[in-house]
Amino acid sequence: MEDFSFQNKTAIRFGKHHIDEELHDAVAQFGQKVLLTYGGGSIKKSGLYDRVQEALADLQVFELSGIAPNPKIDSIRDGQKLAKDHDIDVILSVGGGSVLDASKVIASAKFYDGDAWDLVADRGGQSRSNIDQLPVVDILTLSATGSEMNAGSVISNPDLNVKLGTYGPNTPAVSFLDPQLTYSVSKWQTAAGSFDVFSHLAEQYFDRAKANDVTSGIIEGMMRSVIKWGPIALAEPDNYDARANLMWGATMALNGIARSGNKNGWTVHPIEHELSAYYDITHGVGLAILTPRWMKRVLSDETQARFARYGREVWHLTGDNDLDVAQRAIQATYDWIKSLDIPMILPGVDINSEEKFVEMAQEAVRIGRLNQNGGYVNLTVDDVTALYHDSMTTIGFE
Amino acid sequence: MEDFSFQNKTAIRFGKHHIDEELHDAVAQFGQKVLLTYGGGSIKKSGLYDRVQEALADLQVFELSGIAPNPKIDSIRDGQKLAKDHDIDVILSVGGGSVLDASKVIASAKFYDGDAWDLVADRGGQSRSNIDQLPVVDILTLSATGSEMNAGSVISNPDLNVKLGTYGPNTPAVSFLDPQLTYSVSKWQTAAGSFDVFSHLAEQYFDRAKANDVTSGIIEGMMRSVIKWGPIALAEPDNYDARANLMWGATMALNGIARSGNKNGWTVHPIEHELSAYYDITHGVGLAILTPRWMKRVLSDETQARFARYGREVWHLTGDNDLDVAQRAIQATYDWIKSLDIPMILPGVDINSEEKFVEMAQEAVRIGRLNQNGGYVNLTVDDVTALYHDSMTTIGFE
Repeated sequence: MEDFSFQNKTAIRFGKHHIDEELHDAVAQFGQKVLLTYGGGSIKKSGLYDRVQEALADLQVFELSGIAPNPKIDSIRDGQKLAKDHDIDVILSVGGGSVLDASKVIASAKFYDGDAWDLVADRGGQSRSNIDQLPVVDILTLSATGSEMNAGSVISNPDLNVKLGTYGPNTPAVSFLDPQLTYSVSKWQTAAGSFDVFSHLAEQYFDRAKANDVTSGIIEGMMRSVIKWGPIALAEPDNYDARANLMWGATMALNGIARSGNKNGWTVHPIEHELSAYYDITHGVGLAILTPRWMKRVLSDETQARFARYGREVWHLTGDNDLDVAQRAIQATYDWIKSLDIPMILPGVDINSEEKFVEMAQEAVRIGRLNQNGGYVNLTVDDVTALYHDSMTTIGFE
Repeated sequence: MEDFSFQNKTAIRFGKHHIDEELHDAVAQFGQKVLLTYGGGSIKKSGLYDRVQEALADLQVFELSGIAPNPKIDSIRDGQKLAKDHDIDVILSVGGGSVLDASKVIASAKFYDGDAWDLVADRGGQSRSNIDQLPVVDILTLSATGSEMNAGSVISNPDLNVKLGTYGPNTPAVSFLDPQLTYSVSKWQTAAGSFDVFSHLAEQYFDRAKANDVTSGIIEGMMRSVIKWGPIALAEPDNYDARANLMWGATMALNGIARSGNKNGWTVHPIEHELSAYYDITHGVGLAILTPRWMKRVLSDETQARFARYGREVWHLTGDNDLDVAQRAIQATYDWIKSLDIPMILPGVDINSEEKFVEMAQEAVRIGRLNQNGGYVNLTVDDVTALYHDSMTTIGFE
């Protein structure tokens, strides 16, 4: 078990009754000038927009809408200008992880005088973690990224084909998590979000730290929950228990708890980020396609005991032969993803050419330091290129 | 899954290297006048006292020592006087849960003008949760109570034979958790602490909420960890991984995470508190003796599915018959406790008479509201009296 520091100050308000009773005060405690951020029109269709406006009727509300999935740097630039021009006190983010990721960076950008992309890329001599940040309150409408209880954001720059993670000094101040708001999430996004959660857990579970059983056990329990409730949420979109377990699971998967005592380096995320950056595909779907191939590739004499534990504790597999249990666990992972109606190959998300794979692999290895102990098992550019290639067909799994 | 609110601001510094590097600043950020609280002489023998004094050499340090296990109200009164007389800025608690529990109440008592017992009992018109509280920094030397990351304290009043829980507005500001400091913990205290942790998990696991799988899974994983590492810590007191998993498990068991979405009422704790209040026995040992009897008593058609899940996920038991799996899980629990060298009957802790059992049962039922949906399964005074009686012998288990 490795040394670690942990602190997470986000106030969670989980369930059916918090928003109408507590939203006003949660926002107004930070001031009168609110920047309301959201994506497309779905919160207007659902009535959530009106509920929010009503709750904040006595405050000064400015708006930034149109924040896209894989949020783009242009939205940050627009938000930066609004926050400065109106001397915003607090941001209220209403939407999924993309809106929230953008909002967290805008919260920093108010205090940054350069171009927002330099802030994201930590260029220009000032690290984002060392500059001030507006408080962010959020109402979450999608269970996936965990952004509601961490300090991270992922921002894309389409001009550069780059997608970067950036960390501010603070997590959101207050996160309202009402599972009912996710009833209307499409099957596609529900499946992608469920796998995003699973992937966050897997990235932290397959880890170089030894004998970290508290964290390992916590992750195993959370994996079983998402495996159980993901398919139920797909079949019954308004099943409260399914939506609730997915929502709290998403938050808990990425609030720092699941990395306590780990020696943590993520592998599949940097490899996926290139797919999203080059092809703008849904992040969770990219992860879902890559993960079983990655598991198969890193299974070895050194890792098979860990994969066998994964099989026994998460999939309830039995048998004494670690390699056999490990292999069945990887197949079970693949079969579960498939049951979520996720296309299991890259052509299923319209990536039909291998042309860019070497270039993407080079970027993934560089950014994730994958050949320098950045992840669970070292990977070269050739390894990552092969992973992209393996993801073009179902060979090995079907 | 029930609605809930969650926030926990405690900064955790876990591992081998935090104290010497970070203690000074963690304390000094709150001021110059420090009340150092501790128990007996063990921190002087171990050298920890000198390390602390050295780290705080440029601050004004006042001392309150002699805080006993099951901390007594007189220590709170002494601390209250010191805190007021010297206008203390911050408390540094060095010791186990008892020292920390006392320190947290003293932190409130500085701002309370009445007698400290009225503060604990929330009498005199002011609830402790609504008055100010000094910041508390702690260095933990025992893995058990979880006090290092929650707002609760348990304080005893020997004159009244009463032991009460009390909650302040804040959790500790910074908790230093170095597993090496628990190498010298006796086998008795290691066993009692391990079971205290297990009991915290069990009280939250056997719960009236339905379909709360994230939390259930998290608890199952933490149970497996304490079951694995408790006996190892007994056999190898300086096994770092064992001490580390017990320490982080203790903290995580009672920081609010394990009750997220629960409909939580505790049962065995109020029943045990009477044992400690009347006989001053070690809390974790009292819990260990009572718990398997309690499990057996509440096992029914309604509860057997939950106990069977417990058997399968925590004890890896197989079989399709829920009742059978449940019964084997309870026996496994008993056998594990016995393997910790805990005396399995009340006479083993010098409780040889049944004379007070009815009186104690009345108090437990009243304080825990055990017959009014206060716990997992309703219990009457007769039920609790019978539980104490069952704890006099090993009948049913050996």
